[in-house]
Amino acid sequence: MKPITRTTRGVYAIAPTPFHADGTLDLDSLRRLVDFYEQAGVDGLTLLGQMGEAPKLTHIESVKIVETVLARARLPIVVGVSAPGLGSMKALTDDVMSLGASGVMVSPPNTLRTDDQIVGYYQQVGEGLGPDVPIVVQDYPLTFSVVMSTPVLQRIAQTVPTVVMLKHEDWPGLEKITALRAAHEAGDMPRLSIMCGNGGLFLDFEMQRGADGAMTGYCYPELLVDIVALTTDGRTGDAHDLFDAHLPLIRYEQQQAGVGLAVRKHVMHRRGLLTSPTQRTPGRTLTDTERAEVDLLLNRLAKRDPRTAL
Amino acid sequence: MKPITRTTRGVYAIAPTPFHADGTLDLDSLRRLVDFYEQAGVDGLTLLGQMGEAPKLTHIESVKIVETVLARARLPIVVGVSAPGLGSMKALTDDVMSLGASGVMVSPPNTLRTDDQIVGYYQQVGEGLGPDVPIVVQDYPLTFSVVMSTPVLQRIAQTVPTVVMLKHEDWPGLEKITALRAAHEAGDMPRLSIMCGNGGLFLDFEMQRGADGAMTGYCYPELLVDIVALTTDGRTGDAHDLFDAHLPLIRYEQQQAGVGLAVRKHVMHRRGLLTSPTQRTPGRTLTDTERAEVDLLLNRLAKRDPRTAL
Amino acid sequence: MKPITRTTRGVYAIAPTPFHADGTLDLDSLRRLVDFYEQAGVDGLTLLGQMGEAPKLTHIESVKIVETVLARARLPIVVGVSAPGLGSMKALTDDVMSLGASGVMVSPPNTLRTDDQIVGYYQQVGEGLGPDVPIVVQDYPLTFSVVMSTPVLQRIAQTVPTVVMLKHEDWPGLEKITALRAAHEAGDMPRLSIMCGNGGLFLDFEMQRGADGAMTGYCYPELLVDIVALTTDGRTGDAHDLFDAHLPLIRYEQQQAGVGLAVRKHVMHRRGLLTSPTQRTPGRTLTDTERAEVDLLLNRLAKRDPRTAL
Amino acid sequence: MKPITRTTRGVYAIAPTPFHADGTLDLDSLRRLVDFYEQAGVDGLTLLGQMGEAPKLTHIESVKIVETVLARARLPIVVGVSAPGLGSMKALTDDVMSLGASGVMVSPPNTLRTDDQIVGYYQQVGEGLGPDVPIVVQDYPLTFSVVMSTPVLQRIAQTVPTVVMLKHEDWPGLEKITALRAAHEAGDMPRLSIMCGNGGLFLDFEMQRGADGAMTGYCYPELLVDIVALTTDGRTGDAHDLFDAHLPLIRYEQQQAGVGLAVRKHVMHRRGLLTSPTQRTPGRTLTDTERAEVDLLLNRLAKRDPRTAL
Repeated sequence: MKPITRTTRGVYAIAPTPFHADGTLDLDSLRRLVDFYEQAGVDGLTLLGQMGEAPKLTHIESVKIVETVLARARLPIVVGVSAPGLGSMKALTDDVMSLGASGVMVSPPNTLRTDDQIVGYYQQVGEGLGPDVPIVVQDYPLTFSVVMSTPVLQRIAQTVPTVVMLKHEDWPGLEKITALRAAHEAGDMPRLSIMCGNGGLFLDFEMQRGADGAMTGYCYPELLVDIVALTTDGRTGDAHDLFDAHLPLIRYEQQQAGVGLAVRKHVMHRRGLLTSPTQRTPGRTLTDTERAEVDLLLNRLAKRDPRTAL
Repeated sequence: MKPITRTTRGVYAIAPTPFHADGTLDLDSLRRLVDFYEQAGVDGLTLLGQMGEAPKLTHIESVKIVETVLARARLPIVVGVSAPGLGSMKALTDDVMSLGASGVMVSPPNTLRTDDQIVGYYQQVGEGLGPDVPIVVQDYPLTFSVVMSTPVLQRIAQTVPTVVMLKHEDWPGLEKITALRAAHEAGDMPRLSIMCGNGGLFLDFEMQRGADGAMTGYCYPELLVDIVALTTDGRTGDAHDLFDAHLPLIRYEQQQAGVGLAVRKHVMHRRGLLTSPTQRTPGRTLTDTERAEVDLLLNRLAKRDPRTAL
Repeated sequence: MKPITRTTRGVYAIAPTPFHADGTLDLDSLRRLVDFYEQAGVDGLTLLGQMGEAPKLTHIESVKIVETVLARARLPIVVGVSAPGLGSMKALTDDVMSLGASGVMVSPPNTLRTDDQIVGYYQQVGEGLGPDVPIVVQDYPLTFSVVMSTPVLQRIAQTVPTVVMLKHEDWPGLEKITALRAAHEAGDMPRLSIMCGNGGLFLDFEMQRGADGAMTGYCYPELLVDIVALTTDGRTGDAHDLFDAHLPLIRYEQQQAGVGLAVRKHVMHRRGLLTSPTQRTPGRTLTDTERAEVDLLLNRLAKRDPRTAL
Repeated sequence: MKPITRTTRGVYAIAPTPFHADGTLDLDSLRRLVDFYEQAGVDGLTLLGQMGEAPKLTHIESVKIVETVLARARLPIVVGVSAPGLGSMKALTDDVMSLGASGVMVSPPNTLRTDDQIVGYYQQVGEGLGPDVPIVVQDYPLTFSVVMSTPVLQRIAQTVPTVVMLKHEDWPGLEKITALRAAHEAGDMPRLSIMCGNGGLFLDFEMQRGADGAMTGYCYPELLVDIVALTTDGRTGDAHDLFDAHLPLIRYEQQQAGVGLAVRKHVMHRRGLLTSPTQRTPGRTLTDTERAEVDLLLNRLAKRDPRTAL
């Protein structure tokens, strides 16, 4: 599979990890998901992120998931390999890269504070993983409590040649995209592919600011594909119209602590993609009230974007 | 002025503090704001919260603002009095209560961690401020890094008789409203008035979960008034329709670190309410790109809710 | 090997993980360390804690270390199995318990905040690891940012039957030992073995408060053995005299961020126990100035406790 | 009074704020303290720091304390003016500088994360307080959760001309002193006076690393004066001997959350300096067991440093 690069564009959907009701891996649903994502028109997949419940998996399970997806997909695959230490990070990286992954994603340990600590960390990661592993830096202060300023991202891009992509989910983050693009144009840093996360909550404007695409797990990846395409075609008004139709649901997904993931698994279950909406322990499913609220949002969405009707 | 109580309902708009371009207090704009809020139909005002740039004010300025508003308004006023210590908290509380405030709002210092520390803190506050000062507990983990579980809020309600209201902005928070209402109905805690913050991002569902109203600073308080009224009348479908029209802008306001406040001051400036959109240092105004984005959202909003046209 | 219990007493030395200068595991030094600890009179060993550089090891290396020690030692072994998720925690636990470990140590993920979250976490761990795995709870707020109050530890002890030991390193922590012992005597919680960490900085008083021993990595474990024995014999004056002689060095070890570990590895290298003082990346050795400072402290110590002379 | 400068040396004792048993200010004890510090040979005093229970005081009380001390003392006085916002910081600064203070101390708000945020904060403070107010930067990550790297301190020193002194209490911090001195000698930053805090726990080595003195509140400031003098005279062996005699008590004072301050107030009460060991709410006094432990340490200290006998 071709590696991700500094100019990778499009939608990399973050895939959930399907479990049976008893918490064991559900590889059949995983294969079905892969087919679905391909039909939805995404450009790649990201596995084993936060949303993929990565920390609840053993090393063996993690490898099994990547193997299953790579056997099925014709898409490039990015794999989350964040770990408390370089030891297990490198072990998983070596396994998934040799299986054919196109890159790995690394989030910062939440003990990092100073600029030098953050830059130093990614330098160690880059050196530790070796010159052939393209790296995605995940910039998500809300979850990791690590704040990467624009100068820090510049320094990482300047000094770690294998860092080629930014999973952008700082918040607020619009000005950061603009600043990173300006720094690149001024010759102050190599280009990074910027893929937007944060559940897509600001994707309409992020694309207009110069992002290359989306890397997030919204339960209708078709919407992400459309927003990227419409913006690329300069049809920003249409992009806003479509985006606004989905925003009430996108917003509802923006609930931390397992709720957002429960929403996604519920919708993907209702869409027939997941056999069960189960999260592995510790995790939860939607309460009855939450389920009713999501279903209400789905009904309202179907009126504004009839393709979503279930 | 009548004190706030456990059954207070409606919209308490959080008012920004108007400054001239040179950073001095703009009391004329403040009086204009008061008139505007009354005409918009809000039920009360909250002054000197985070959004009111309270930490940038001296004690004397804080008192001046409260005095000016109370001289003008016929509405009950809640005043933010959070401070690193009880000394200055009590000094400000005594001043504003004697001027006629209806209650004070207290956020937790971000050093609190355990349940006992949080409960103990509000017990000290309750005792320190005395039996005649109604207190609003601000539950806003995203900003204060203090997580108050439902049992903690129960214990505060049980043991601090002057705590009568919760400014609810936990995130996710829908289930918490349901749990608090259930605890009250089961006789496990006295009733608290629950007023919703978080910029209104979940107000549609929060009202349906049993909240009493909104206490937030969205730049169109008229929308908050309408959502509360429509939900109270059982017209939840209409509430969703109106809410969804405003959601793109509400979402855009959901940017921390001064951006959200800059949006609000910009819109209120465009609405003719503030003479200047200035935030006092440290603060910022919108960049050109941000201003264009907000203006785009305002134009789009005016099509869906023509009353907002500028 | 016999499992640890609620009445385990004595010294469990926390062993460093020896590396060659190139960062590979040094199993010869590890065997030499095991012999040394046995001769020093410790009652057990703790492997793969923070000090053991656990996060830098792969699963396979971790198992290899435990295997090597168990093949050599006649002492009970506790193994650190903390992990971001239950998946890898259980995998490592199963491996080391079947090799003959006497229990596992689990630190809390630093995302936990409320009492219920902390208690819930250890309930999940207890259930996940199964009824045959004795668990040590590591209470170390300075490093993990998780604050466990006495009521929280009571609830864990009450509801998780396999939690039998507390690695006590709250700070300040003397009153907590007293409170936990009082709660046990009042029948409010099952007894926990309390083993003290924090580098031994308060061990003199901790033993007098009712602790059962020490579980820490001071570079002279002989001192820990002596303090526990002297206190048990009621010779507290002698315990203080000996402790005070070592305190300047114990204090110097109390430097986070890898310095403390570098001190320990340096001293154990000088004592002929470790072939190399290397820490695996990311880590560091002492600077020249630090080395001179430690050697000065060793010289001064040798005058007050001649057995330590090198 | 002469302002503090980049070459200020010696001991600036951090004075506790004396309260009567009912929590009111005890100005008689404060005057007695001032006389005591002068006789003990300190070079200056620092008021209204964390140890001075500053957050519990009103603005009026804070000014009263500074006024009382300045009316009595012939020593330069540094005043802690940290506040959540520049408004109240400037108000207190103006008041105490016009009364004759020699400088102010400012700790960073614990919301700061990136290097740019920290540098930007002190730039705003420097500008806000004006060109005539010498500033002490308090670098105390353990309490404030703000980590200032050496490059950050360099940038502050380079860009904020009124920052002349560092209250050094990073931990570990020895290498930082060395790095800051090297940066100055290399011409990379203006000189800062470096005064050491952290309760004095590393003062022996900090002085040898190039610090200018101590700024901390150990209950025997005479010891701080002696260590600085002995090191300045090159008598480092004698300095270590004396330091080690006090270390068990210095160590016992190293307990956060009010315990350390309770120890200091207890000892100063026993020394006849404070009429009452009261801390204002929220605060605490020593438990019976703690008091017995401290008294034991005092008895043991009196044998090694007979001047301390009570």
